[in-house]
Order: sequence, then C-alpha cells, then structure tokens
Amino acid sequence: MRAYDDAKLDALMDSAGMDLVLASSRHNVRYLTGGYIYHFNERSQRMGSGRYLAFVGVPKRTAANAFYIGTGGERHGLDVLPMGIEHRDLDAGDASSSSRVAARIQSFVGPRATVGVEMPFLPADAFVALRSALPHATFIDATDLLHELRAIKTPDEIAALRAVSERIAAAIQEGFGAGYDGVTTHEIARAVERAMGAANVAFLWALTNAGPGYLRAPSGTRWERGRLFHLDCGGEVGDYLADICRMGSLGEPSALGRALVDECLAVQDTVRGRLRAGMTYGEVKDAARGALAGSTHAAIGRIVAHGIGMVSHEQPMINRPDQADRILAEGHVLSVETEFLHPEIGHVKIEDTVAIAPQGAVGLGDGGRALRVIG
Amino acid sequence: MRAYDDAKLDALMDSAGMDLVLASSRHNVRYLTGGYIYHFNERSQRMGSGRYLAFVGVPKRTAANAFYIGTGGERHGLDVLPMGIEHRDLDAGDASSSSRVAARIQSFVGPRATVGVEMPFLPADAFVALRSALPHATFIDATDLLHELRAIKTPDEIAALRAVSERIAAAIQEGFGAGYDGVTTHEIARAVERAMGAANVAFLWALTNAGPGYLRAPSGTRWERGRLFHLDCGGEVGDYLADICRMGSLGEPSALGRALVDECLAVQDTVRGRLRAGMTYGEVKDAARGALAGSTHAAIGRIVAHGIGMVSHEQPMINRPDQADRILAEGHVLSVETEFLHPEIGHVKIEDTVAIAPQGAVGLGDGGRALRVIG
Repeated sequence: MRAYDDAKLDALMDSAGMDLVLASSRHNVRYLTGGYIYHFNERSQRMGSGRYLAFVGVPKRTAANAFYIGTGGERHGLDVLPMGIEHRDLDAGDASSSSRVAARIQSFVGPRATVGVEMPFLPADAFVALRSALPHATFIDATDLLHELRAIKTPDEIAALRAVSERIAAAIQEGFGAGYDGVTTHEIARAVERAMGAANVAFLWALTNAGPGYLRAPSGTRWERGRLFHLDCGGEVGDYLADICRMGSLGEPSALGRALVDECLAVQDTVRGRLRAGMTYGEVKDAARGALAGSTHAAIGRIVAHGIGMVSHEQPMINRPDQADRILAEGHVLSVETEFLHPEIGHVKIEDTVAIAPQGAVGLGDGGRALRVIG
Repeated sequence: MRAYDDAKLDALMDSAGMDLVLASSRHNVRYLTGGYIYHFNERSQRMGSGRYLAFVGVPKRTAANAFYIGTGGERHGLDVLPMGIEHRDLDAGDASSSSRVAARIQSFVGPRATVGVEMPFLPADAFVALRSALPHATFIDATDLLHELRAIKTPDEIAALRAVSERIAAAIQEGFGAGYDGVTTHEIARAVERAMGAANVAFLWALTNAGPGYLRAPSGTRWERGRLFHLDCGGEVGDYLADICRMGSLGEPSALGRALVDECLAVQDTVRGRLRAGMTYGEVKDAARGALAGSTHAAIGRIVAHGIGMVSHEQPMINRPDQADRILAEGHVLSVETEFLHPEIGHVKIEDTVAIAPQGAVGLGDGGRALRVIG
C-alpha cells in the first residue's frame, strides 16, 4: 500500500524544480512501490562484479507513467508479490539499467529535464552512465525531497513502527536476561541479535556500554556486579526501523547509578509530556532542553529529538537550525534520547520512539523502560 | 588478520596502471583492513540525509601509507577492536570524507595520480567530490583488481567459509523441519531466517520452490504432500558468505522427483570429483558440461561453477569466455550448482561450495545433501 499521494509528490517536485524523481536506495524504492523490494537482493546488493540496482522513476503530474526497472530474476516473484507500479522493465538490474532509465526519462519528460537522483545512494557507475545517456539533462539531489515525502506517517506506517519498536524493546530485555557476572558486552550483543532473529526482525546494531567509561562497541569488556549496562539497539522490518535504548543493572546499582537512570526517565517523561502537534521544531528543541535543564545532573546530560522512520534520522529534523520554524504535525514520529555520561557510572541513556497524535506523544515500544535489575 | 600480501597488490596495481586503490564497499574495506568494519553501520549504511561511508586507501609500493577514513563514532571502538591500518582519520564518515581522501591522495601519489575506485559501490556524491578535489587525477574502476586480490583464500578464510557454509546447511535443515502439509513457502523462508539468526549468521536470502512451477520468491504458495521443495539460501559472517541449495520432500516424492534429485547429486559428485588445481577455467567448464551431458535428464538441466567468497560470484570466474585459459589453483573456492527444471516436479537443485586443495575439491558445508524426507 502506497503511503503517499501523488499531489504531495507533485508539489514537492514543483518546489524543487524537478521534472522526475528517480529513486535507487532500497528504502525509497520500497516506499515508492508501496512496499516492494526484490527479496533476493534485500539484504545484500553485491552481485558478481557489480551490484544489484533497481530504479523507480516518477514523472511529475503523470504518476501513471511511473516505472520500475529491475532484473529478470524478479519476473516470477512479481506475479505473486504486490508492486504499486504497472510499467516494469525487468531486463537490467545493475548499472546497465541506466540506459533503460535514460530512455524512459527522455520519452516522458524530454532530454532537457531536471532529474532528482539520490546522490548518496546512486552508484558512481550508474551516475556516469545516466549523465552520458542524457547529456542535456540536469541532475539534482532528491534526498531531501524524499525525506519530505515520507515525513508524515500513515496509520499503517505507525503500526509498522510500533510493531518493530515493541519487538526490539523485547529483544533488549532478552539481552539483559543473558547477563551474568563477567559476561562480555559482545555476548550480550549477540543475544540481542538472536532475539531479533527469532522475532523476524532484521538486526541492525547493538551498542553496548558496561560502565565505567563510554565504550559502546561490543567487545570483551565485562559486565560486573553492581554496574549499569546500556543497550541501544536498532532493527528493521520492511525498511521501517526502530532505535531503542534501555538500562539494566547486575544486582542493585550504586545510589548514583540509580539516581541517573531515574533522572533520565524523568527527563524523557517531561519532554514527551510537552510534545504537541502545532509546536515549531524550535519549540520542541526548547522543550527538550528545558526538561534537561531541570535535572540535577544537567551538566553531564544531553538530550536530542529527531524524526525516525525508514532512516534513523529523518524528518522532522528538529535540530536543523534552518528548520526551527517548521511545525510538528500529527503523523510525525520522533525518537527522543536523554543521556548522562558519568566517568564512574558509564553511559546512562534512555531512547524512546513516539508518534504525534491528537492527544500528544504516544509511545511506540515502551516496554522495559524501568531499570532492569538482573540476578 | 590481513589475507593478502603487499607484493600481490603492488603487482596488480602495476598491471592496471593504478597508483592507489581506494575501497569504499563494506566487503573490500573489511578485506583491506584485515577484518575491521564499524559495527554501528555494518548492517545499514543509511545515516541522516546521507549515508555512512568509510574509505581505505592503499598507495602502490608504500603500503605503510595506507589510510582509513571514518567517523568519530568509531574512535572508542578502535581502542579495543583490531584494525590493520595505522593512519586513521575519524572526523568524516560520509561524502565529506572525500576532501580528506583527496588530501591524502594528493600528498602520497600526487595530483595527477591514477586512482582505482569501486565504481559500483562509490556513491555519486562522493565521486563528484573526489573529482572536484582532484581535477587532474584519473579515476578507473578497481572492482576487478579487488576481485583478483581476493581470489586465493587463506586457510583462515577457508575456515570462515566452511563455518558459515555449515551453519547455513544446518539452517536449511531447520527450514525443512518446519514443513507440514500446506505450509507456505514464506513460512519456511522465515524458519530458515530464524535458524540463521540463532546461529549468529546474517541472513541474506532464502529462495523457495515448492513444485510444480519455478517460482522461488517466498510467498503464500503451499508445500503439499508428495512434492519436492528446494531451499537455496545465503547468509554471511563477517562478509564471508555461503550459498547452499538442498532438496526436501513432504513424504516420499514421485519416482521422477526422486530420480531428478538423485541425478542432481550424481552430476554434482562427478564434477566435484574432476576438479583439480592446474585445470584451466575452460576445462572446469567442460568438466561440468560433460558431467551434465551424461545425465538422462540433460535436456532440462543446467550446471554452473563460479567463485564465491565475499561476493557470491567472484574469481575464479569460470564462465567468462575471456578467462578460459586461466588456471584453477589451490585456495580457490567454487560454488557448483546443478539444477533440473521440470514443469510438473518443479525446480530441482543442489548447490555446494568446495575449496580447491592438493587432493582436489573439498566440500565446505556438505550437510544434508541427500533428499530430506519430512513427515
């Protein structure tokens, strides 16, 4: 099911002076097709001497001419899997797709079109081939336009983000559950990865901190009794990702450790309680800073809020100074992160995902927010 | 541990007329650093409005000047994780790395150098930035050179390929074990994915065919009693991947189904028995074709052999006509695939990985090669 409407995309293309948007990243191909990705290359794009490369092109105001260009291997699957685009060319699937893309661009929007491409995700060989096949076209970056297009989540998308967030929150608890005196951070990270696998979530990362110190790379560092542990974990289902951080302790932590975790949760609850549709991004940032400033440990604290969806930092981009006047809206989804860095205690952090609803911020995946004490 | 030696890389750069090789794909960054990758971005390169991008540059004949350019987030982890390169710049990590890369290239090999880049894996924005910062340099594609560099596997690499192949062969058996009359191919694929997760293997794909017909996309198609099922599955550990296909049946298959599976195994055994270091790639291809030609069902059969390692089709590239005179050598690793496509029975296929050793081809991950009959 497509999550955007043609009118919004047309308006964004008008603002950007773009005649056609051409997506090549997995997440934006998935978004523009309404959920389709070639299953064989979903987790690895390496393919022989090159890489798998599919394109979706959408011309402005003629969305019926949208096209998908992939490989012959996709043909059978497309008979049974959904795909929101009728025009398909399945005889390419790598940089050679570029000539087929160029032919469609030329026929739909002409040789002098302005074409939006994903510069950080388009491979250099395909870019060179496109420019060579369309020497009079102008290529501009479409990354921000696609972020804007995806900014407001539909109820189905929020349900998808809730589902993956809940599963990751649960996988984190399984990670803590694998804890014992002397367990390595590497072992805990692998336990989280296995738990995500069991829940059919694609593991993305597990950042692990066993205080003291701030190392978050899974390693041979040991979790010892009385020490806090932070698990900051990401995973995805169908390119919708979640990024959640929870705190655990092996036995009761020190009074200071307990106080920092409690403060972290209190700051999070305060800022979450203040979020409302209609605030500017600048007001969101002020609310977050204000919540932190009220904490006893503000001097060692940090707080940040940012959009999350198919990318871990996307619209609403609360922290971009040039966007401070933009308005938080229903359907925006935010990640809110509060952390305290204390050299003796370690890296205390809580990260939650919330959706902006009529009544305010609604938590997605709030399981296990309280300190988990093991053993 | 680095798997290549400087002299081999220097010789390849000499042949290619290259002054410096610049890797940016995950697998080649991992290979050139001797196993390092930034754990946070190992499974997802998306990062804010751009993408995570690390570079490894190695100048010809001055490997001591090799450099790594990544992000500040890697700093703590590099204190405890291995990395084979001393010169590190951790203040970039996206397309902005390009200016730092350019400065090093300019200082080590001069402004008019010929630089090998991975055109299918280098993002267009980084390519544009590199060309702009080094307007007098010549950029050529280094993909084939890096394939050559990786072609001969060390004993450690073969052990890594054996470990991942064995785990995937076992995961396939768990997939068959989840079978019952009416199970969907999607359910079986998810069972394989969960089994890989439990074994700490990163799932890449599960192609599923429940005969009749040739559909391999996991779907609502049901596996029914008396029918064959093929599971062609890929996964990886530390960028070393395995790609294995095994056959199952719900109850005893038809006589023809059983015969096709037996033929498939017989053809595989024949070609595997003929592989020897010292053969040309052309002779390998002929041996494979000859083995298939001896089969009763040759008319519906296909056979192919190709290198496998960090990419699923790499050196030795048995099927490239321009490489027919090249020599199969100890340390090469091949994937051998035999398949019969029968409209009533479905897609019968066995795919094995073998390493070329002094005594011939040694199977990596040969578990479950015989037909697995369920229920």
